[in-house]
Amino acid sequence: MRGTVLHAPGDVRVEHRDDPSVINPTDAIIRVSAACVCGSELWSYRGIDPVAGPTPMGHEYCGIVEEVGADVRTIQPGQFVVGSFFASDNTCPHCRAGYQASCQHREFIGANGAQAEALRVPLADGTLVATPEVPDDALLPSLLAASDVLGTAWFAAVAAGVRPGATVAVVGDGAVGLLGVLAAHHMGARRIIAMSRHESRQKLAREFGATDIVTERGDDGAARIADLTNGIGADAVLECVGTAESFSQALRSTRPGGGMGIVGAPHGVAIDGRELFGSQVRVQGGPASVRRFLPELIDLIWQRQIDPGKVFDLDLPLHQAAEGFAAMDQRRAVKALLRP
Amino acid sequence: MRGTVLHAPGDVRVEHRDDPSVINPTDAIIRVSAACVCGSELWSYRGIDPVAGPTPMGHEYCGIVEEVGADVRTIQPGQFVVGSFFASDNTCPHCRAGYQASCQHREFIGANGAQAEALRVPLADGTLVATPEVPDDALLPSLLAASDVLGTAWFAAVAAGVRPGATVAVVGDGAVGLLGVLAAHHMGARRIIAMSRHESRQKLAREFGATDIVTERGDDGAARIADLTNGIGADAVLECVGTAESFSQALRSTRPGGGMGIVGAPHGVAIDGRELFGSQVRVQGGPASVRRFLPELIDLIWQRQIDPGKVFDLDLPLHQAAEGFAAMDQRRAVKALLRP
Repeated sequence: MRGTVLHAPGDVRVEHRDDPSVINPTDAIIRVSAACVCGSELWSYRGIDPVAGPTPMGHEYCGIVEEVGADVRTIQPGQFVVGSFFASDNTCPHCRAGYQASCQHREFIGANGAQAEALRVPLADGTLVATPEVPDDALLPSLLAASDVLGTAWFAAVAAGVRPGATVAVVGDGAVGLLGVLAAHHMGARRIIAMSRHESRQKLAREFGATDIVTERGDDGAARIADLTNGIGADAVLECVGTAESFSQALRSTRPGGGMGIVGAPHGVAIDGRELFGSQVRVQGGPASVRRFLPELIDLIWQRQIDPGKVFDLDLPLHQAAEGFAAMDQRRAVKALLRP
Repeated sequence: MRGTVLHAPGDVRVEHRDDPSVINPTDAIIRVSAACVCGSELWSYRGIDPVAGPTPMGHEYCGIVEEVGADVRTIQPGQFVVGSFFASDNTCPHCRAGYQASCQHREFIGANGAQAEALRVPLADGTLVATPEVPDDALLPSLLAASDVLGTAWFAAVAAGVRPGATVAVVGDGAVGLLGVLAAHHMGARRIIAMSRHESRQKLAREFGATDIVTERGDDGAARIADLTNGIGADAVLECVGTAESFSQALRSTRPGGGMGIVGAPHGVAIDGRELFGSQVRVQGGPASVRRFLPELIDLIWQRQIDPGKVFDLDLPLHQAAEGFAAMDQRRAVKALLRP
């Protein structure tokens, strides 16, 4: 089969890879209908995270089940399924608590490379959620979004404690940040402040429910949030970037006792214990436990209540994956969908 | 009047200070019935926090109102009152949200020096809570504890999300940690693991409701918590120390998605953003908003449902304040009560 491989910073190729096969009896093999490029993959694409030899890419996926191992009970060939970027058994204590990204048997899907024609998904019964039937092509982008960026945004909003009537600020205007706006809107936030400097992203943020746009960054950005909230700060802030500057901006934008949900994987973030303490802000982050939200998200998409697929502004055949990476790296695209 | 003054590290003296008087019309002057030495004051006593010239000490207090300013409406002379270490108006948006330690008009009581015969309390109506009547002498230690250590422990337990049936670990066996055990017990925790190496403190922890004692520290301590919880970690952890080691120990003792309440004022704590992120732990800390809990705590004490005053294992006349500091510094005493 064909799949993407990162050979070195900036060097993504679509090339021959071995067809996946059932290794463990809990595995499923799926024919990938759509995959995509994740903002988190840009860290290695840009050489900020090291690239240790040729690496298959991709951990967001949906598709049709082709084959299942002998111990798979609920997932069946022919089903259309969506899974998270961590395989999880969905039965261990961490899964039962809703933290499937910390499953005692978790495996990172990215290791198998989802930007490919087919994919092995471990712990299929725990990991995959089937749609009611095989969806129309028009639903593909939204269902794919549920696999990571939408679920991650949902986790951020829940971690930040977004509630009906809340004032919410979103730091980051990538796909996760934009879908954070959508999540906050769905959860009933009264005021949603999107922090963005890019006109096209501001427009999408407004479509998703943003009521205010702040273009300033860092301490100036936090000062603007203070201005907009009578000096109080936002009730909930979603940190969807992962740099020291964005972390600080988010923390300083949150009111005392407010919540901050962190889903931008931190790079070079050292948090001053005294500042965190003094802020009285409730902080929770992590690789999102997308699996917790998948059934609800798939249902909302299936009922056409949300349209997260709008974040894909570049739709490419798999063999043009390199252009998908380049466009996202250069911020020409919010998010690239790849069709095998 | 007489009051304590820290002149230099290790040099506490009880000496003449000016009698306090009403400065602002919202002030009250109270005759201090009891004050005490706070663990947080040991940072400057030990020279870790700088001592900028002679500094009045003390921010925990209870006593009888002597005089009130013209704008004080609810607090009246003759009442016995307890207040927090931050004066707060109890009406601003932060106070209404329960974060009185971030009151927009807060003033630190410590600046006025509560280890003294009398004390000026700003924002008296917002800050002070009166008991139903002047209490018996036997209730004094517990009411004094409510002023800081008990309220701080309560805040830690609430911030950590202690719930009925929870497994809770408490890092730190000072007065706050011990009362964290009491708070967790009152909130219905099923299992309470106190981390302590000191026999007398272990004994008090058990009296307050601890079910297990762990003597190991740092990563060994976290490993013991893992052992005791089938590798899962505690649902809620109270960090009542404030060092880099105790912070790390607490974080590593908490299960993914669990909560950590931080009330040990951080000293030299730099949090690795990646570790916090990877842990998925919900973290909240800060100078405790004791005022939020004071009415409930006073009621519990008044009804003899809790006896937090047991943490005072040294009861001294005010003129022996220096011995109170020395005994706590050398860990000969958990907490020293001072009677003017």
